[in-house]
Amino acid sequence: MAIQNHPLIVEVTRGKADSRGDFVESRHRCHVAVVRSDGSVALSWGDIDQPIYGRSAIKPMLALGLVETGAADAFNLSPAEISLACASHSGERQHVDRVRAWLRRIGLSAADLECGPHMPYNEVAMRAMVRAGIEPDASHNNCSGKHSGFLTTAVHMGEPTSGYIQYEHPVQQRLLGIMEQLTDLELGHAPRGVDGCGIPTIAIPIHRTAMAMARLAEPTSLPAARADAARRIVAAMTSEPYMVAGTGEFASEVMNVLKDKAAIKSGADGVYVGILPGLGLGVCLKAEDGAGRGCEAAMAHVLIALGVLSGDERAKLADRLAPAVSNRAGLKVGRIRAAADAAF
Amino acid sequence: MAIQNHPLIVEVTRGKADSRGDFVESRHRCHVAVVRSDGSVALSWGDIDQPIYGRSAIKPMLALGLVETGAADAFNLSPAEISLACASHSGERQHVDRVRAWLRRIGLSAADLECGPHMPYNEVAMRAMVRAGIEPDASHNNCSGKHSGFLTTAVHMGEPTSGYIQYEHPVQQRLLGIMEQLTDLELGHAPRGVDGCGIPTIAIPIHRTAMAMARLAEPTSLPAARADAARRIVAAMTSEPYMVAGTGEFASEVMNVLKDKAAIKSGADGVYVGILPGLGLGVCLKAEDGAGRGCEAAMAHVLIALGVLSGDERAKLADRLAPAVSNRAGLKVGRIRAAADAAF
Repeated sequence: MAIQNHPLIVEVTRGKADSRGDFVESRHRCHVAVVRSDGSVALSWGDIDQPIYGRSAIKPMLALGLVETGAADAFNLSPAEISLACASHSGERQHVDRVRAWLRRIGLSAADLECGPHMPYNEVAMRAMVRAGIEPDASHNNCSGKHSGFLTTAVHMGEPTSGYIQYEHPVQQRLLGIMEQLTDLELGHAPRGVDGCGIPTIAIPIHRTAMAMARLAEPTSLPAARADAARRIVAAMTSEPYMVAGTGEFASEVMNVLKDKAAIKSGADGVYVGILPGLGLGVCLKAEDGAGRGCEAAMAHVLIALGVLSGDERAKLADRLAPAVSNRAGLKVGRIRAAADAAF
Repeated sequence: MAIQNHPLIVEVTRGKADSRGDFVESRHRCHVAVVRSDGSVALSWGDIDQPIYGRSAIKPMLALGLVETGAADAFNLSPAEISLACASHSGERQHVDRVRAWLRRIGLSAADLECGPHMPYNEVAMRAMVRAGIEPDASHNNCSGKHSGFLTTAVHMGEPTSGYIQYEHPVQQRLLGIMEQLTDLELGHAPRGVDGCGIPTIAIPIHRTAMAMARLAEPTSLPAARADAARRIVAAMTSEPYMVAGTGEFASEVMNVLKDKAAIKSGADGVYVGILPGLGLGVCLKAEDGAGRGCEAAMAHVLIALGVLSGDERAKLADRLAPAVSNRAGLKVGRIRAAADAAF
């Protein structure tokens, strides 16, 4: 525990290695930081100073712009809508219908979203669309809630709505400032790319991303309006867990059980963050290879290591914390688990 | 080149690290062996003595049972059907219809396949089925050609068709013997699991799997019937590349360009093999984390390093050898490439 120089290894097992127990078929190397709001490290594995793109995992930080500008109040956003602004949703009706209704309230539509379309992640929702011959639009994009938040901020601030995904646009520049304050970094020359949904993605060390999450968990050191916004965002996520992801999704299922103890959020290419208000801790982790299955198992291990889950909660989530690998006929043929959890 | 102790690193880039060039967002660690039929190593990266499950990558070796028993000839199997026996196909009409016709010829049907059902990998085929309200059966399973080969062998040999996926069944025991001969190993106590399609999967070191592939490429040391079967299987794969995988799939596209120079085959959880008749070489590689995108880029690097591709062929396959990462709006935002190919 405490500080480990080696990555946290997540093992994917299949079958048996003769008398030597489970055979490990694949391995994910995860770099993990658990940090307090002052930046001190509570727990870590691997290289936490490496810069990573937080991708969708840092949406709760980006939602600060929506709330602290007063845009959320100006348009009476509900907790479900603020939760959607932090979401990588699975494109179910509950997500898409709310995004569209929200956009109508600000006088815009899915045509104003610049995130591009894709079919829902949720298979039932995807199949229903295919059966009905409906192609996806940008409201089905898993990031449509975040983008609706950007548009809401632009409308409220009297900024152009077109081009809101560009680095130079005031919406994105405002978020750059927020990220700089929460990470104590100047980010103007940080590595920068384009995210899957078209917005800039800025590389921030794992440790600093975890510190930013800790400041959302325990925001007393932030300016008052920002601190209030942080509390409201975390409360929205934990009270509306199915808006953050969707039916059967790891983040939603875990948050649904943990209630106000934890907000957790995935990002593409193997990122996960956690915001733990009761403990005043922030978590950021990255599976080196970008695997979702790797970072979910690593997040499960961190939550267990920190004692966030009660015995009852562990039992309820057993299938999510160390999920089975199944074959096409439905037979359980292996398991995904943090190596340190081998006995779990 | 030659023997490298470190894994071959495949980088997934996104955006720029200021003046320092591309930013590497994720990395895949690949262990790679390129071996001659006598077991001598021509080229390697990482730990090639580690046992791995070959999964679907070793289907060309498993097809030896179908051909050398005379079952393929008894039922007049075409090159397309032998290629399907080596396939992880994408469930297009061309695959499914042929599997069903083949099963009819041996007096059986999809109901006799024990691989379980899943929706086609090919999105056009999947959507057509959803639109038509058709649920998949076992003939849509990517392994249905391999399983049809097992059933054909059982029928030809007068063995029970039910239970042909069990370790103890003569079909699987025959394959165990074939694998033992091609790898020069006793495999009775090797680590063993259940594959996605229900058959036993046996752990074999990367180096020995590559040697087995070299013996398919250059089979003169094998018994005559086995050597003939090897030549026929490799010729079937290279002459029917779209039967091995499908439209838009890496293996099919590469084989379609390389013609009789290479048969390549993917396996689940990051495995790839290559059979290079002209060079008398076999390739086996494993992405430690199981990522398909990692092992495709590693295979591309190996084919380039070995000089298998002409300049024209490299140009034709440029988008497959170092593919772009695109966002939802279709913008190219990064690249997947072997680290040693950074300048490629």
